[in-house]
Amino acid sequence: MLGNRQQLFDLIRRQASFLCVGLDPEMGKLPPGLQPGQPGEHPILTFNKAIIDATHDLCVAYKPNLAFYEALGPAGWDIFAATVDYIPDTHLVIADAKRGDIGNTSRLYAEAFFQQMGVDALTIAPYMGADSVTPFLGFPNKWVILLALTSNPGSQDFQFAPQDQGEPLFEKVMRKAMGWASPDELMFVVGATHPEQFVQIRAIAPDHFLLVPGVGAQGGDLQQICQHGLNRQCGLLINSSRGIIYASSGPDFAAAARQSALSLQKDMARILAEAGLG
Amino acid sequence: MLGNRQQLFDLIRRQASFLCVGLDPEMGKLPPGLQPGQPGEHPILTFNKAIIDATHDLCVAYKPNLAFYEALGPAGWDIFAATVDYIPDTHLVIADAKRGDIGNTSRLYAEAFFQQMGVDALTIAPYMGADSVTPFLGFPNKWVILLALTSNPGSQDFQFAPQDQGEPLFEKVMRKAMGWASPDELMFVVGATHPEQFVQIRAIAPDHFLLVPGVGAQGGDLQQICQHGLNRQCGLLINSSRGIIYASSGPDFAAAARQSALSLQKDMARILAEAGLG
Repeated sequence: MLGNRQQLFDLIRRQASFLCVGLDPEMGKLPPGLQPGQPGEHPILTFNKAIIDATHDLCVAYKPNLAFYEALGPAGWDIFAATVDYIPDTHLVIADAKRGDIGNTSRLYAEAFFQQMGVDALTIAPYMGADSVTPFLGFPNKWVILLALTSNPGSQDFQFAPQDQGEPLFEKVMRKAMGWASPDELMFVVGATHPEQFVQIRAIAPDHFLLVPGVGAQGGDLQQICQHGLNRQCGLLINSSRGIIYASSGPDFAAAARQSALSLQKDMARILAEAGLG
Repeated sequence: MLGNRQQLFDLIRRQASFLCVGLDPEMGKLPPGLQPGQPGEHPILTFNKAIIDATHDLCVAYKPNLAFYEALGPAGWDIFAATVDYIPDTHLVIADAKRGDIGNTSRLYAEAFFQQMGVDALTIAPYMGADSVTPFLGFPNKWVILLALTSNPGSQDFQFAPQDQGEPLFEKVMRKAMGWASPDELMFVVGATHPEQFVQIRAIAPDHFLLVPGVGAQGGDLQQICQHGLNRQCGLLINSSRGIIYASSGPDFAAAARQSALSLQKDMARILAEAGLG
């Protein structure tokens, strides 16, 4: 997608969806009936293309997690690049990389992902502070998606730790980061497994888009998140990975992926309509 | 290197050095007089080989930062793998990747780096907590090097934030992580730009190896760090990247890199001898 925050909201209305599909394929989990693609095409790429074909009219974003591509060895980067190329230009492409390093090194990551690979958004880890995050800012129509409150059990270890003012660390991360960038280039990751936190998070960041993983396999509930998480531009991107791409382990995997995405999209269309955002 | 903590200390004594050379090459900074390597060899690989040839008898570890290889596009992974292959088996290979993700994803990163690429150690970011770190543990003779206190200015943003007991976040990270793994598979990153912290850090973690970046270009002082950072197995790996690989921008870059590494190694040999660790 080439676009700003308003254009992302326009896309959400057009698709009646704020679904992000996580493209996290593993060799050991490919369906046995996967038909070979073009000659020489890697089966992971064939699988990704089938998932994209089956879901692109139901979602607004795709989120490949780099770990799944690095696990394929050097070929993985070509497969990642080919997957990004295959995603329709209308859609937001999020590289889930959780990068972050000292300033001059973060700059290299930013150039690699935004300029060379042409992704629209990149997930970033906040632990190293301002100069590890700000090199990713200032690329037109590109987004930093900063880890705030993650969906995994380990989020309890540090992210909830009370800081000097009593606020948990993830709130401190959000407040600090809001001084580095506007909602036009900054989103936050907030896990669906913490639905009780969305009231407070919206009090801190009323205008930001939130990328919400953890619906489906990890147990997050869509309705509950939307109740307090929606804002006047929707403001949510709900990610589902395993719940869609592995909806079936048989030769009907693409149809099953579509069915799973469709079920979420229908709920989203209703939620958007009820909120007057349709 | 295939070895445990004692074998790392033996290597340090044999080399009279605890130097780690950061292999962070950029296309735009290659010396103009770089002689082409084997036919078809990428100039970054030629450069890395020359640096390794010029320094391997003066150091115990090499630390390629993945950002510099990802910045080269898909070819970067082949160059990274070929660089790792070229490093003598005697030496510790640290992939500076600062990875960390939810459990099943961290496991993939661990397999990619430890098993496929054969690196000995991997830097990990702690923000996502236990289940983002523990999948990297339990690989025989492999190491997790967890970010504790980094060398960059942004370390002030969150890492020093006082927690519930008044201790800074990086100390909480260290204490928690010490419950996940022993000093036989866990090291910490502690930046050389915080020499005043080494007393307290050694009080928390007397036996752990510390990977210390920030000497040289970032201004850290070797003598000051060793004064409080050394333990009975040395316990320090001092990294220098730009100060060595860009010691000269001319055709004498390899000789200059050797000279810069030699100067550090001589200081280290003296420090080890004075501490009775020679």
